[in-house]
Amino acid sequence: MMIIMQTDATQGEIGAVVERVEGSGLRAHLSQGEERTVIGVVGDGRTIYPDQFLHLPGVDRVIPISRPYKIASREFIPQDSMFTLDGVKIGAQGILLIAGPCSVESRSQLLETAQAVREAGAHALRGGAFKPRTSPYSFQGLGEAGLELLAEAREITGMPIVTEIMAPEHIPLLTRYADVLQVGARNMQNYALLNAVGESQHPVLLKRSMMASVEELLMAAEYILSHGNRRVMLCERGIRTFETSTRNTTDINALPVLKSLTHLPVLLDPSHSTGHWEYVAAIARAGIAAGADGLIVEVHNHPSHAMSDGAQSLKPERFAELVHQVRAVSEAVGRTLEPTV
Amino acid sequence: MMIIMQTDATQGEIGAVVERVEGSGLRAHLSQGEERTVIGVVGDGRTIYPDQFLHLPGVDRVIPISRPYKIASREFIPQDSMFTLDGVKIGAQGILLIAGPCSVESRSQLLETAQAVREAGAHALRGGAFKPRTSPYSFQGLGEAGLELLAEAREITGMPIVTEIMAPEHIPLLTRYADVLQVGARNMQNYALLNAVGESQHPVLLKRSMMASVEELLMAAEYILSHGNRRVMLCERGIRTFETSTRNTTDINALPVLKSLTHLPVLLDPSHSTGHWEYVAAIARAGIAAGADGLIVEVHNHPSHAMSDGAQSLKPERFAELVHQVRAVSEAVGRTLEPTV
Amino acid sequence: MMIIMQTDATQGEIGAVVERVEGSGLRAHLSQGEERTVIGVVGDGRTIYPDQFLHLPGVDRVIPISRPYKIASREFIPQDSMFTLDGVKIGAQGILLIAGPCSVESRSQLLETAQAVREAGAHALRGGAFKPRTSPYSFQGLGEAGLELLAEAREITGMPIVTEIMAPEHIPLLTRYADVLQVGARNMQNYALLNAVGESQHPVLLKRSMMASVEELLMAAEYILSHGNRRVMLCERGIRTFETSTRNTTDINALPVLKSLTHLPVLLDPSHSTGHWEYVAAIARAGIAAGADGLIVEVHNHPSHAMSDGAQSLKPERFAELVHQVRAVSEAVGRTLEPTV
Amino acid sequence: MMIIMQTDATQGEIGAVVERVEGSGLRAHLSQGEERTVIGVVGDGRTIYPDQFLHLPGVDRVIPISRPYKIASREFIPQDSMFTLDGVKIGAQGILLIAGPCSVESRSQLLETAQAVREAGAHALRGGAFKPRTSPYSFQGLGEAGLELLAEAREITGMPIVTEIMAPEHIPLLTRYADVLQVGARNMQNYALLNAVGESQHPVLLKRSMMASVEELLMAAEYILSHGNRRVMLCERGIRTFETSTRNTTDINALPVLKSLTHLPVLLDPSHSTGHWEYVAAIARAGIAAGADGLIVEVHNHPSHAMSDGAQSLKPERFAELVHQVRAVSEAVGRTLEPTV
Repeated sequence: MMIIMQTDATQGEIGAVVERVEGSGLRAHLSQGEERTVIGVVGDGRTIYPDQFLHLPGVDRVIPISRPYKIASREFIPQDSMFTLDGVKIGAQGILLIAGPCSVESRSQLLETAQAVREAGAHALRGGAFKPRTSPYSFQGLGEAGLELLAEAREITGMPIVTEIMAPEHIPLLTRYADVLQVGARNMQNYALLNAVGESQHPVLLKRSMMASVEELLMAAEYILSHGNRRVMLCERGIRTFETSTRNTTDINALPVLKSLTHLPVLLDPSHSTGHWEYVAAIARAGIAAGADGLIVEVHNHPSHAMSDGAQSLKPERFAELVHQVRAVSEAVGRTLEPTV
Repeated sequence: MMIIMQTDATQGEIGAVVERVEGSGLRAHLSQGEERTVIGVVGDGRTIYPDQFLHLPGVDRVIPISRPYKIASREFIPQDSMFTLDGVKIGAQGILLIAGPCSVESRSQLLETAQAVREAGAHALRGGAFKPRTSPYSFQGLGEAGLELLAEAREITGMPIVTEIMAPEHIPLLTRYADVLQVGARNMQNYALLNAVGESQHPVLLKRSMMASVEELLMAAEYILSHGNRRVMLCERGIRTFETSTRNTTDINALPVLKSLTHLPVLLDPSHSTGHWEYVAAIARAGIAAGADGLIVEVHNHPSHAMSDGAQSLKPERFAELVHQVRAVSEAVGRTLEPTV
Repeated sequence: MMIIMQTDATQGEIGAVVERVEGSGLRAHLSQGEERTVIGVVGDGRTIYPDQFLHLPGVDRVIPISRPYKIASREFIPQDSMFTLDGVKIGAQGILLIAGPCSVESRSQLLETAQAVREAGAHALRGGAFKPRTSPYSFQGLGEAGLELLAEAREITGMPIVTEIMAPEHIPLLTRYADVLQVGARNMQNYALLNAVGESQHPVLLKRSMMASVEELLMAAEYILSHGNRRVMLCERGIRTFETSTRNTTDINALPVLKSLTHLPVLLDPSHSTGHWEYVAAIARAGIAAGADGLIVEVHNHPSHAMSDGAQSLKPERFAELVHQVRAVSEAVGRTLEPTV
Repeated sequence: MMIIMQTDATQGEIGAVVERVEGSGLRAHLSQGEERTVIGVVGDGRTIYPDQFLHLPGVDRVIPISRPYKIASREFIPQDSMFTLDGVKIGAQGILLIAGPCSVESRSQLLETAQAVREAGAHALRGGAFKPRTSPYSFQGLGEAGLELLAEAREITGMPIVTEIMAPEHIPLLTRYADVLQVGARNMQNYALLNAVGESQHPVLLKRSMMASVEELLMAAEYILSHGNRRVMLCERGIRTFETSTRNTTDINALPVLKSLTHLPVLLDPSHSTGHWEYVAAIARAGIAAGADGLIVEVHNHPSHAMSDGAQSLKPERFAELVHQVRAVSEAVGRTLEPTV
């Protein structure tokens, strides 16, 4: 942490800040510039609260130097984190393809879609049973009945199941049915939920909030990791910006940034990050080219009858085409769609 | 809902859309322009899901016409909603002043601060016992011990208590201690929580998420209102933008916009919306000038020792100065700080 | 400037950075933390280019400490800048009211509007003769004929004229007719234009770009000031954010932030910052409450026939009402609408 | 254009709007919904100004239906626009690679860099002689001396020259030296400049402003196209968002969106869109995977001595590696780096 003094700070004010730093068990290091004095705070910056210095007379700004997350950082764990899910290796050379409907709507809808994505090359099945919806009047999901359909789809196709968790009290129910608990974008800073999925020790897919910085995503991951649960995948799904021609703005930069800051696997959700099925394949290709470790894609057997996210859902034949294109790009960047590598 | 066809849509494609509209029990109304055809959908637009039309051949865009919220809208309830809280009238001519520390940290901190804000003119006391924190390593609040201190402060000062709720399972505990349940910005779209506070029938202070549109804030309020709980106050607390000179950007426009769209009382939190105590009074004055029905302000007896939000907390004497300034502006716009009016 | 080294930087890498700093004629000051080394650069930071250090091995980040503008800063000139315009004192206790149509459209439109705003209490007349328009097919302004009408309006009403300049080659023409040259938001970083208005020594109203930071606005002002032209007013006119319920988001925080960072007068344009006439008066009041030194407001004698910005233009009687409200708020914050104070 | 009436609009108000529409030579088409009336305006929407209806009593909102640009639209010109530049075909199957330094700084710097990028596979040379800089104290470019060095580099390497134009009066000078006039992001809405480059009939590279929507970029292109100049390339270079881990946010979605809305070639500038050389190659690959027709990349023979944009400039050997990777991705998506195809 660096404490930047005002240009007209007095020696007394500087002394008071130094005293405060040393009173907190840290060391202060003065750097007297031509315009102003900067006080470096030496010690574990995570144990001290920067705001406390802002009210001291003569202080202009406080700048943190250490990154505020630890277990999630590549400085702490340099090697890529990998783990296996039903024989599918995640975070390794193979690209992970998760596909399926936004919501589980009916037995035929789910099973038809699941079989289609399986044939096209998906490794895992997504499908929501509990749905966060902006409107209280929208379809809220089938609940446990949806989970049972997902279990049936797993039995038939062999694919592990990824489904969203919305509240801590659903942990016992969802861990019975789901192979991966998805924490949705709206819940990325629901700390009660992060603590609960951390304690569950179940694999987690953590989606970036549309309003969260990359650093805040890593802080949210740190909540889960701090419970000893290391099977965490991150997922970029678009951020909110001024541009309205797409539902969100895919923050493609976040992929190489995350790969450099963290050892955790990083996925892309091109369905939510664009919001329009016409753009999903292009952005899926871009994500792999930029270094994503996997994709999660919304597919529906009849998108024009979908009860949620129809605009961004692909028909099965278009998903098959996407997989074909993604395979070519994967190979161009030295990756593969064989998930057991 | 208006369905905009592509410029080269065929008569067959137009016919198929019309058929689909009428199959949903609604009426289609064709408007044949020079460049393209627009199909108006007549009936209750809230019962139909716009995305379903986007996959039909020849469709370019779908534009909703009806507002997606109902009980929250001024079209539905034209008169300002008002309710009384321990003799304080909310949503009326009187301005509501809520003040207190970000977190409850200790008995002396809370009681000193509470008495100071009471003397300065505050009507209600804020203080967090359960704190949502970006870092798992930050102070997370005193929990129930904090609630007990709040109860003591209420007894001594007579002020009703506003405190944040973070999880549905805390409802029984919090409704025992708090007069108003605050739903924080990070939880604005935590639907499990919105449903729970709706069912509680307890007064609610709903803060806008830093990246929610005004419409999404009203949709979140609709979740609570749809449970029959009408004692809901909205609160603007700054949105996230590209500007970094302040912690958030106060969306001052949202105040007159909300007052025109909804009958619910609208508050401003100038502490979070600026993030710097130096700017809090200026923005508090601006909020009242723009039509806010109240303010919620962070005050701490020793901000430079605060365990959270110290940078934006006012010392008691600065809060007293703020109240003095706000009183003058209130009177200039025909309002008053007498809350029983 | 502080150079933050990577946690695993070697002594050799640290030495190379120090050598580079000293080779630039500056001094390096090492601060060896537990996790990493920070190198403070002592000397005039404005003479060195931070990017040059980012390619050196072992460097993690470079953080500037000095503010990049100088003449515009309050650290350099602590007292408020003031200047007089046709007897109107700007930057002093009096609030400056500029009003008039977006574009000059016709003689009767301009003169009727000018007389109405004069009677309502405006001190200066705005009106565009050269208009920047998003579409090449929109009305582009009357050009010199518009300037002649502005001159006539000045003669009749006695009000000084504020009009927009779009290209350096218009300087001779515009300085003949206009009392204040307005640099529009889209041209805030048109450096050829900034240099030209700087050299002109004519008073300038510099509008913030809708996506410029406060710091970038001050850098743009620095371009003008560095030519010795000190009669510069800044103007907040809304920034672009994700919120779409208003045309722009009024960055009300920018008013107290600018007043603390710079000595230049700061105005607010509530017409552009909201884009809807219904919200203009509320935001005008808020601007004065937050510390603005003046307002620039779009008024049109017949807004529903305006050729540009009709949605945000006030009818004369609504402007008169706004002045009435703004007067009350001005007095509540110790200001006045008497501009000669 | 659709005019949405308020829910409580009277028949008289509806009639007045219809009368106004028909008085403008257009036809009104009523659609009486259950909640409100919508009035469709039939005719060329571009000739009428939507704001004029917003002041009429009973009007709630006005929604445009036609796209506001014409020549730039794919609806108007369905086939991809192509043109040839010194034997390099632009907008066709071949990917265009433009590379070179941000600024021309010296003869050796330019020639060394030019030869290196030529050898690595670039087709055209970029280099700024007139530089827009945020600070008046930064290096502003070599001016005409820089252009002469660019001419020498062209002679030696055979590559066409892309350089930025900052003011209309530079047209005669720049068209003598440059093969492509670049309009920079800060000047995207400098209409005097857009008109001048339109009239010049010289090829143009139009960069998207960091604050412009996709639609506004197309409107800016329309300014140039409306002068009969059809040799226009668009360039995405990152937009401004809340995320600060990169200099800008690459709007990768804009690539497929632009390819669907316009027939013009679309390039990506991964140097500006990330601001960090470490991420440039990943985003260059992503751009090609998403459908870009070319790339413009900053390369410097000694980035740690660059006078501008050093942080985002690649060393020549890293650029060669980028070209190698981009070639593989190009082939994976059915494109090629052979520009004469």
